[in-house]
Amino acid sequence: MADNIIGIDIGGTNLRGALVDSEGNILKRAKISSEADQGIDKLIENLTSFIADISKGEKVANIGIGIPGIIDSKTGIITQAPNIMNVDNYPLRSVLNEKLGSDLNLVIENDANSAAVGEWWMGAAKDVNSMIMVTLGTGVGGGIVLDGKLWTGADGMAGEIGHITIYPEGALCNCGNYGCLESYASATAIRRMVHEGLEDKHLNTVLRETTENTHIEDIPRIVMEAATSGDKFSLSIWKEVGTALGIGIADLVNLLNIEMVVIGGGVSNAWDLFINTTIGEAKKRAFRAPMQRAKIKKGLLKDDAGILGSVYLALHNNS
Amino acid sequence: MADNIIGIDIGGTNLRGALVDSEGNILKRAKISSEADQGIDKLIENLTSFIADISKGEKVANIGIGIPGIIDSKTGIITQAPNIMNVDNYPLRSVLNEKLGSDLNLVIENDANSAAVGEWWMGAAKDVNSMIMVTLGTGVGGGIVLDGKLWTGADGMAGEIGHITIYPEGALCNCGNYGCLESYASATAIRRMVHEGLEDKHLNTVLRETTENTHIEDIPRIVMEAATSGDKFSLSIWKEVGTALGIGIADLVNLLNIEMVVIGGGVSNAWDLFINTTIGEAKKRAFRAPMQRAKIKKGLLKDDAGILGSVYLALHNNS
Repeated sequence: MADNIIGIDIGGTNLRGALVDSEGNILKRAKISSEADQGIDKLIENLTSFIADISKGEKVANIGIGIPGIIDSKTGIITQAPNIMNVDNYPLRSVLNEKLGSDLNLVIENDANSAAVGEWWMGAAKDVNSMIMVTLGTGVGGGIVLDGKLWTGADGMAGEIGHITIYPEGALCNCGNYGCLESYASATAIRRMVHEGLEDKHLNTVLRETTENTHIEDIPRIVMEAATSGDKFSLSIWKEVGTALGIGIADLVNLLNIEMVVIGGGVSNAWDLFINTTIGEAKKRAFRAPMQRAKIKKGLLKDDAGILGSVYLALHNNS
Repeated sequence: MADNIIGIDIGGTNLRGALVDSEGNILKRAKISSEADQGIDKLIENLTSFIADISKGEKVANIGIGIPGIIDSKTGIITQAPNIMNVDNYPLRSVLNEKLGSDLNLVIENDANSAAVGEWWMGAAKDVNSMIMVTLGTGVGGGIVLDGKLWTGADGMAGEIGHITIYPEGALCNCGNYGCLESYASATAIRRMVHEGLEDKHLNTVLRETTENTHIEDIPRIVMEAATSGDKFSLSIWKEVGTALGIGIADLVNLLNIEMVVIGGGVSNAWDLFINTTIGEAKKRAFRAPMQRAKIKKGLLKDDAGILGSVYLALHNNS
């Protein structure tokens, strides 16, 4: 019998993890506060006790960890992860190996890459060899699986689908570029569109009452509910989200001729409000044959995608 | 001693080929008219006698062929190659195996993919594992090499770098989309820009005298010479070419984190007139680290890129 594996997703707010068997069945789930804002030492302390907790009573030899940042997965060094730690080039793997045992196999990967692998291994893209996952969250992340293998690029930075340029003269993105997919299809983008729209004092929308001081993670849901209730301004926002995403997907299809594009993340809960626009726009722009090939699917695994992807990588990318 | 290999590039006008050793040294070159306009039978007749001619006195077991079109390289079927033949799903490999012997190993690939492999094997990208080649010709072609392997996608259609959208509301492309890279950085695009500019009867440019009835393949050279002599309108065209290419390269860098982008094709002869714009634009838009990693190089092999790439594929993709 193969040993069980731990998969962990490190976020700015929470550590989420699970004990998983080698077939991808989740045996036990856990979640604690990451307290990442209290510094790297506190985060590591929480992480090690979290791991000890999940593995209680089990001999665990493989752990996979997903982190929102730039990871050199070969060396296990966190190049940059501004939402988690203000330390660059942090040798997470060797720190953890020192604390947890040097024989432990630790694989660390960017969380959007892990999520792509998760959906490919156990989720929406189970039956294909090549796929791209686009995660529409506060930002837009992505991961690319080609021929059953995660493509991370020369420096582990590949898959930045959120930062392909959709409108060269478009809205300023957090990355410094203008008109990125992220600045049209993320929660941050939706918040910008809401605020810009509300500057017109004559605009008639239910959002005027509901979006003051709203937390960014709640914005997509509020705009979704408003659109569902027929609010024209909210509907126009989803149209803009869907269009930008369609242009981006056409690029991916023409460039990589993948078998599937999986769309996940909190913003994708509004699926019915944007997906027809997205597919219509992509079909208008991409070549017919590769567009017919590329199924556009909603992610199936939600938060488990990253955990399961990390487990898969820990099992297969032993370094 | 390894046997020599034949590499062939099928074009609308010419068949070009060479006898090459397994180290990539070109031993003998040849070129004849393809007479593709006289139909598929004539083309096959010319191709078989061309192969016989190059292999005269040699035992050749491996032949690689590059074709401008959509190729299913696993089956050796030409899905579509409108510039070469008006037959869809033409089983080129089995036709040639019937005429030349069933034991002959024939590998057929899209010509832009072959050119990418050629530059990676013997040219500008010799020392890297991942690269993208962008070929600026009448259209814009591309090929993607990841981890030393050509990525052709689920249907052999990957690498259509010319058809990523740069300006969503931009000029109509031959593919039906608007604002493709091809509609801003190809000879066809340059011709369009010239014609559109000349519609302004007050525009002062030397191109007014020189571009009437010019063959499309000569247009980039003429606009290059005019720009070099200081013609402002011509300079502005190269600026537009360079900008669009820079936006496209930033997309590739953010998406695939490749080690190199090689730019080839006839339009790239005007290198000095656009490359600074291109690099400046790409740097403005891409993430710093992967952009620093991605060297931007001019192709070294010119017309030999495709031939050598086909040779490499015939040697390594035996199917």
